[in-house]
Amino acid sequence: MPALPFELDRTCEIQWRGSGEGEAVVDEGWTIGPVVNGGLLMAMATTAAIQASGTGHGHPVAWSSHFHEAVRPGPVRVRAERLRAGRGFTSMSVDLRQQDSVRVTTLVTLGDLATLGDHVHASPAPPVLPEPDACLRADRSAPGSSEVALLDRLDLRLDPSTAMWALGQPSRRGVMRAWIRFADARPIDVAALPLVVDAMPPVALDMGGVGWAPTLALTGSVRSVPVDGWLRVEIRTSTVVGGLLEEDATVWDDTGAVVAHSRQIAGVSFAGPGRS
Amino acid sequence: MPALPFELDRTCEIQWRGSGEGEAVVDEGWTIGPVVNGGLLMAMATTAAIQASGTGHGHPVAWSSHFHEAVRPGPVRVRAERLRAGRGFTSMSVDLRQQDSVRVTTLVTLGDLATLGDHVHASPAPPVLPEPDACLRADRSAPGSSEVALLDRLDLRLDPSTAMWALGQPSRRGVMRAWIRFADARPIDVAALPLVVDAMPPVALDMGGVGWAPTLALTGSVRSVPVDGWLRVEIRTSTVVGGLLEEDATVWDDTGAVVAHSRQIAGVSFAGPGRS
Repeated sequence: MPALPFELDRTCEIQWRGSGEGEAVVDEGWTIGPVVNGGLLMAMATTAAIQASGTGHGHPVAWSSHFHEAVRPGPVRVRAERLRAGRGFTSMSVDLRQQDSVRVTTLVTLGDLATLGDHVHASPAPPVLPEPDACLRADRSAPGSSEVALLDRLDLRLDPSTAMWALGQPSRRGVMRAWIRFADARPIDVAALPLVVDAMPPVALDMGGVGWAPTLALTGSVRSVPVDGWLRVEIRTSTVVGGLLEEDATVWDDTGAVVAHSRQIAGVSFAGPGRS
Repeated sequence: MPALPFELDRTCEIQWRGSGEGEAVVDEGWTIGPVVNGGLLMAMATTAAIQASGTGHGHPVAWSSHFHEAVRPGPVRVRAERLRAGRGFTSMSVDLRQQDSVRVTTLVTLGDLATLGDHVHASPAPPVLPEPDACLRADRSAPGSSEVALLDRLDLRLDPSTAMWALGQPSRRGVMRAWIRFADARPIDVAALPLVVDAMPPVALDMGGVGWAPTLALTGSVRSVPVDGWLRVEIRTSTVVGGLLEEDATVWDDTGAVVAHSRQIAGVSFAGPGRS
């Protein structure tokens, strides 16, 4: 069988061994420093949930991942369990393990967006961004980014007005906006969205935070099936207290529809003392 | 041993039978129609996680509950499992069962807010509300509320400017604000917050939604230890599409500190067709 053409699909290809147990292999390309990006692990877990559900509910209308311990490149053992199969929704639990310890646990509520319908009663308009070519390409040449291999897999264009932190001048408004698509031209689909909500630089950087911001937990929701093309992402935080913050992401597709959103709780470090 | 003095604590008192298995009993007072309020079940699950953790991490800095099937008043079997015990955080999983089926699964990341510190880098100011006595007391005499027994357990005062839906005139701004405390004068503490984030009438009502709005999943976070006294709660939604919406809740204590916030994905029904 020929290899799958795109990097995300190759990584999320689970070799099932029966009864909800399988294995996947993560390469070095999905890392931030030595550890694997949480978004990639959520894409893997939600893909596993769909494949193991057996109900045909193919859309993660709500998923919640708790990150217990960092994942390193290499084999990942996947265990998927069906908790309940209802008429409209299927509930799954997925563990990702390395060296016999659970690194990430994900609860997934699967549904079918086509059945749910597409009546729009309210939906926030997408942010107005400069054209992608007038935005700042986030690549490994930027200060502090040389160890973020993940950036090679993405085509991420930051709105310059929300990227002043890269020049040492964080706005402290707690907002970042960007265009995003895959560097290898993989089409945008539902399976990509759990990665996309956690693919931005941490919003903590715009609050003056420094260094890596480990995610403790992230809950996300696919709200519409995206069309292929550029996605727009906005991330925000408003409560930054005691070394933790929440980061809310909203993702719009090229038609302006909200296709996914998420909230994560993450750590944040500051070089100096805060306003206490 | 005398009974515990407050209703929440009596309901969340788990009779442990060893190895993380226990039982609690929910009375009719926590119901909305025939089913038990999700907030009460989250209070029970997070209490179980703390008691079964064995690590001394006493604060749910992130929890995620997926609701598979409604819980009815009566006995609830509790099963708590420790997934990982780290230096700063403990990861727990808690199942709530009735009649041998899992009704609610909750992942809980426990920490210690005192250790995390209280530097405030950013925090939204609490909403300005009329005094509690100038607000609308949400009780069972209001239209459509006679079956909401939960309202007898709460002292919930709605900001009249966000309660026009009760008069058949939803603002469609997707916002609701209130003061809240317990009807039996139970002091406000960390253990109360998972209940409080899901104690408001559904924000769907302010969007013109009708009837009961079942929660599929809710993720919450305790951000500070509250002082006792009135809490202020604001709930909002912005994306109401295809029979689902997100509801974000923020809770402030009497000092104006954000003490908890949450996001849930819930169902919504409309009497007529939407803007599609």
